[in-house]
Parts: sequence; structure tokens; C-alpha cells
Amino acid sequence: MTAQIEPFQTIAISLLAHRLKAEGSSVIHMEFGQPSTGAPSAAIARAHMVLDSDAMGYWQSPDLKERICRHYAESYCVSVSPEQLVLTCGASPALVLALSVLFDPGARVAVARPGYVAYRNTLKTLHMEPVEIQCGAAEYFQLTAEALAAIDPAPDGVILASPANPTGTIIPRSELAAIAALCRARGIAIISDEIYHGIAYGHETPSILEVEPDAMVINSFSKYFSMAGWRLGWLVAPKGKAGAAIARMSNLFLTPPSLSQHAGLVAMDSRAELDANVATYTRNRELLLAALPGLGLAKFAPPDGAFYIYADVSEYTDDSMAFCTALLEATGVATASGVDFDPVEGHHYIRVSFAISTEETEEAIRRIGAWLATQKREA
Amino acid sequence: MTAQIEPFQTIAISLLAHRLKAEGSSVIHMEFGQPSTGAPSAAIARAHMVLDSDAMGYWQSPDLKERICRHYAESYCVSVSPEQLVLTCGASPALVLALSVLFDPGARVAVARPGYVAYRNTLKTLHMEPVEIQCGAAEYFQLTAEALAAIDPAPDGVILASPANPTGTIIPRSELAAIAALCRARGIAIISDEIYHGIAYGHETPSILEVEPDAMVINSFSKYFSMAGWRLGWLVAPKGKAGAAIARMSNLFLTPPSLSQHAGLVAMDSRAELDANVATYTRNRELLLAALPGLGLAKFAPPDGAFYIYADVSEYTDDSMAFCTALLEATGVATASGVDFDPVEGHHYIRVSFAISTEETEEAIRRIGAWLATQKREA
Repeated sequence: MTAQIEPFQTIAISLLAHRLKAEGSSVIHMEFGQPSTGAPSAAIARAHMVLDSDAMGYWQSPDLKERICRHYAESYCVSVSPEQLVLTCGASPALVLALSVLFDPGARVAVARPGYVAYRNTLKTLHMEPVEIQCGAAEYFQLTAEALAAIDPAPDGVILASPANPTGTIIPRSELAAIAALCRARGIAIISDEIYHGIAYGHETPSILEVEPDAMVINSFSKYFSMAGWRLGWLVAPKGKAGAAIARMSNLFLTPPSLSQHAGLVAMDSRAELDANVATYTRNRELLLAALPGLGLAKFAPPDGAFYIYADVSEYTDDSMAFCTALLEATGVATASGVDFDPVEGHHYIRVSFAISTEETEEAIRRIGAWLATQKREA
Repeated sequence: MTAQIEPFQTIAISLLAHRLKAEGSSVIHMEFGQPSTGAPSAAIARAHMVLDSDAMGYWQSPDLKERICRHYAESYCVSVSPEQLVLTCGASPALVLALSVLFDPGARVAVARPGYVAYRNTLKTLHMEPVEIQCGAAEYFQLTAEALAAIDPAPDGVILASPANPTGTIIPRSELAAIAALCRARGIAIISDEIYHGIAYGHETPSILEVEPDAMVINSFSKYFSMAGWRLGWLVAPKGKAGAAIARMSNLFLTPPSLSQHAGLVAMDSRAELDANVATYTRNRELLLAALPGLGLAKFAPPDGAFYIYADVSEYTDDSMAFCTALLEATGVATASGVDFDPVEGHHYIRVSFAISTEETEEAIRRIGAWLATQKREA
């Protein structure tokens, strides 16, 4: 029997949202984890140029590798060499590479629950075992050194995500250092998903590499750089593992899209435009944090980073997928059920993405408020 | 111990070629399996349009799926539904999906030797066992029903490649039918790599789906469609396996590049321009077939399709990697050593790609001939 992998439940919501839109409804897409903005204008201009001048064969951009290394030096005071970098078709295959280099089938890898659904499913597809640790509000919805110390026997690895999907919570540097020390002591290999770095609200987003140079880091151009559909990401591997990662890349995936590499290089120097996107998220987040409690959604994780609010809807339902569907059908506001992120407690949660315009956010607040007022609350 | 995966040896040749070029040498790139032409002009024009009008989020093009289904109807008289299609970032991840859906770790999968290096290495990475069958000139360098019947015990699966890399040989429809019947009888699951379809020289390239609707097929826009660096491919899965393939796609890889899907849709209706590329390959092939024997390279597989000549250089060397390096350094003509494709016999072979211009082909013939005349032949 090959592994049974569930499709994303959110896809069903998105399909319904697109059908309602096609039927003439006004739909606000807060269900998917992607910016509604496009790539920075300078990146698009570069893409136009390259389209007319380059045959675009298989390629890995040496300049982009150098630029990413400079990013680590400037943003984290961390030294990464181009030889440690693997450019990938988004963060997803970078995770496949990292898992494949570090672990064999049967390996046990700790992940937070709630967490990004693909961690669990990619582990299962590779015949590894996700060790899911329930992380509630008391733990800031994040793994801690204490939680990792309690897993018996020690897992082979752990996937950290900070800022996290679906909650947006951040692991502070002190806790990250404690986790790194604990993992060294117990022989737990660390993969750190840093895909939401660059999107935070008054909080630092330290890299695991600041406290553990031997960790694997995955990242991408899909969030801060606003280039989700361009499919570009990277893996940082420690020097002793980079060769194995590069060999896997060339066999399993070959190269990332050439045009995306050209555009991505320019995007890395388009900070003013990208920071303006984050300023929009900041306004949207403030509007939601101010409005939601009054509308009847008072319990959610503190969204310190990323662009999500993970809200407890247990007052209204024991079936958040039905809740999301009803909300969408009644109001045109598409949200994600928590069941993708947490198969145990997710039926009591929804994830709301605010990587949309402020006008849409204001309109969504009006519609959600009016609809929630009609819903029965169970005290 | 995680699997030991070798990097492509050809990459070393390519790096040397690029260094020589940077130092001022005139280099002819015949080492890699990619067209030197770009995407069709209408596809590039569409890409320019989309760049200015689409934010390019995560996306799978329904129109492209429909168009690929029409391609199967028109080119093979085979019925494929959009639900059976998974759009991927090139053929490489499509192979990962197919193997993952069909097999568990430990599965034994037959492949021809010589063959594309990534078959062997992707199987190893997924902890499956490549069962390599030596296929010489007598077998047209291809797997046969007879060879598959002789494997004891029966393997769990087989990867077919027709036209093949590195040889360009094609499995005729009658043999394909015999292989399909044998595989049904022995319970061997078939994955058919049809990435070189559309590039053949007076030979049909039948799809496995004409004789086995339950086979998995991988294909891409990298060869005939001349869009290697756009990273777009697809998997056709039988109806009972398509859901598992789609669930893996969304978890392991999410979506292929959005821009490439827009451009690929247009490329599928750019046959005149693409057939002109094939006409160039046809001329190049004829020039090489006419010239090489007289220059001292008389033994090679009949290149019925693809754009390779896989030539026996055992008269000159027992180390084809050294032979390729010396040829490159002396003449600027970059070729691939057979060791990537055949770890057992490949030290006696080189692969020459003629997906270049006819002018370059003529110049390469001149340079190879002059250099070979200086090389000692061992009778």
C-alpha cells in the first residue's frame, strides 16, 4: 500500500469561490496563502527583457545564489556560501530535498499541530512518520524545547515554522536557541521553514542559522517577494549535506524556472515596493484585530507575522468546513477550514488570510459581521 | 544511511565548456539534452501579455489540461480526461509522482541500460531498486517483452522511454503491445516517458496509452515545444490513480509556473515553428550520419527520434569522460560521456546532441574530424 495522502480541503472552498464568482457573486479570497499583489514592477520589467533575449534552457543562476548569500549576511549576520544553496521550484520541493537528504523511510519527524498540511503529507509520501505535537494557545501554537525534550524516544528530526502557517506566531530567538541546544543534545536534525520571513508586525524573525549553522533552511519567493506562481524557492544545506542536496535536485527536479530566477534576482532589490505590501498587511491586520472581537470572533492566535488569523469558531460550530462553506455561500468571503492544518482540533478553527487589499478587508469585515450576527452562539 | 546519489557527470563538462567560452574559446554545446531554440514566438508574445495583466498566484490551467487532452485525441486517437492530468514543473517531478503513487520503498523497477540517469537516481532516492537491463545494439538499446519476461521474480514496474535518451531509438507499436501484454500478465506497472514525442525521423512514436490505458505517462514542454527552462510538464494517470497523484502534487509541489502554463497553451498551437526546429534537427542528423563514419565514428545507435547520437568510442578510449574532456579542450565541442547513462558500458560511449543550428553542426563535424585524425585508434 502506498501512502494515503489527503488533498487540501481548502481547494474545495476555492473551487466553490470561483464558481460563485463565475455566477456573478462578489467574492473576497481570504482562503489561500498567497499575496493578491503581483511581482515587483522591476522584476516584471526584467522578465520582459529576458523573454526577448534568452532561449531559457536549463539554468541555475549563479548571481541569484550570490544575492541570496548576501541576504543572509545582511538580514541575519549569517555566513552562507553559494555552494550551500540549492535553487528550487518553490519551497515545496526544497522540503522534499531536505527530508530526503536527512532521513530514511521510517524516520520520525516532529511537527507542530496546527501546522502546514504539506509537512504531514510530504512526510507520509516519503514513508516517514510525522510526530504531531499539539501546540495550543499556551505554547503560542509553536513547538518548544520543552515539548521536544518530552518526545520519547527522541525523534530523528523536527520541522520548525516561524512565522507559522496557519497561526502567524513567531518563535523568539531565545526559544530558538533553546530548541537548537536541545536538538543538538538529543541528535534531532532541524529543518526550518522560513518562508514567511520579511512579513512580521513589530517582531524580529530570527533565522535558525543564527543559532544552528547545521540546520536545513527552506524559503521561497512566494510570500514576501509576492511571486507565488513563479515557483522559485531555495534550500540552504550545511556544507556536509549540500552535495547530496544538489545531486537530488538535478535528478528529481533539474532546475527552477529560468525566467523566475532572472526576475527573482531583481525582486530582491525591490524592497520599497515589497515593504508597501507589508504595510498593507499591517493595516489589514489592525483592522481585523480591532473588529473581530466585536463581531463575535474573539479567540485567535496572536498574528505576529505572516498574513493569517487563525480563529477559534467553536462557539458557532463543530464543523469548520461547513462553517466556511456557509460563510462563503452567504457572503462571498472565502476562508480556510482548520482541518487542513489540524486534523484533531481544526474542526473548531478557520484561517483567514489578509494578504488582500485594505478595501477588501474592510468589506470582508462588514460581511462577516453581518453574517455572524445571524449565527447561533453556544455559550 | 540515506541513498547515495551521484551528480550528473555532464555538469562537469558543461562547467568546463562555459569556462572555456568565458576565456574566449569558440564553444559548441552538444552536451546537454535541450533545444538551443527558444519558445515559439506566439508563446513568448502571450507571456508578455500575461506579465502585464496577471498577478500570477498558484494556478493550474484548466484550458491547458483540456488542450493536452485534445492532443491525445488528435495525435494518438486516445481518450484522456482532464481529471487524469497533473500539470507539473517539468517531467522530472512527474516521474516522482508516478513512482510515489505506484510503488513503496523496496519496489523493483526495470529500466534499460543505457538510459536517462535520473531514472536510476530517482528510484534510489525514493528507496526503490532499479533493475537495470543491459540493452545493446541487438535490442536496439531498448527493453523488450522478452527481456521483461526473463526478469525473475517479476519486477513491480518498468520505466519505458521511446524515443530514448541517450540513443534516440524507438519502440515500435507491435513491440509496445507485446510489452503491455507481458506486463499485464506479470502484474508489472508501466511508466512511459514520452518526452521526446514529436521529434522523430520517418518513424511513428506511438504512446503506451494506445495499447495500455492503465499506464502512467510523463511528458513535458522541454523538448519538442522547446521550453526547457520554463519547467512545465505533465503526468497522465489512470482514473483510479489520478486522485492520489493530484493529492501528492498539491502537497509536494503545489503548482507549476503560471506564466509557463499560459505560454505552453499557445505553444501547443505553434506547430509550424516547432516543426521547423525538427526540420533543423533532421538536417543536422543527416549531416552527422553522413560524416561521422568517415571521421572514425562508425558505431552508433540508429537515432530514429530525439536529437542524440550515442556513439561507441571504444576504439579510442576506455574512459569516455576523459575523451569528452580532451575533445572539448582541443576543439571547443562539448559532448556528454556515456557514464551518466550506463555505469557499466558507458565508459566506451559518448552522447552528442544535435539540437543546435546546422551551421554549428557543420563546424562541429569539421572540428571533431580534425581532432579524431590525431587520436590513436586501437584496432
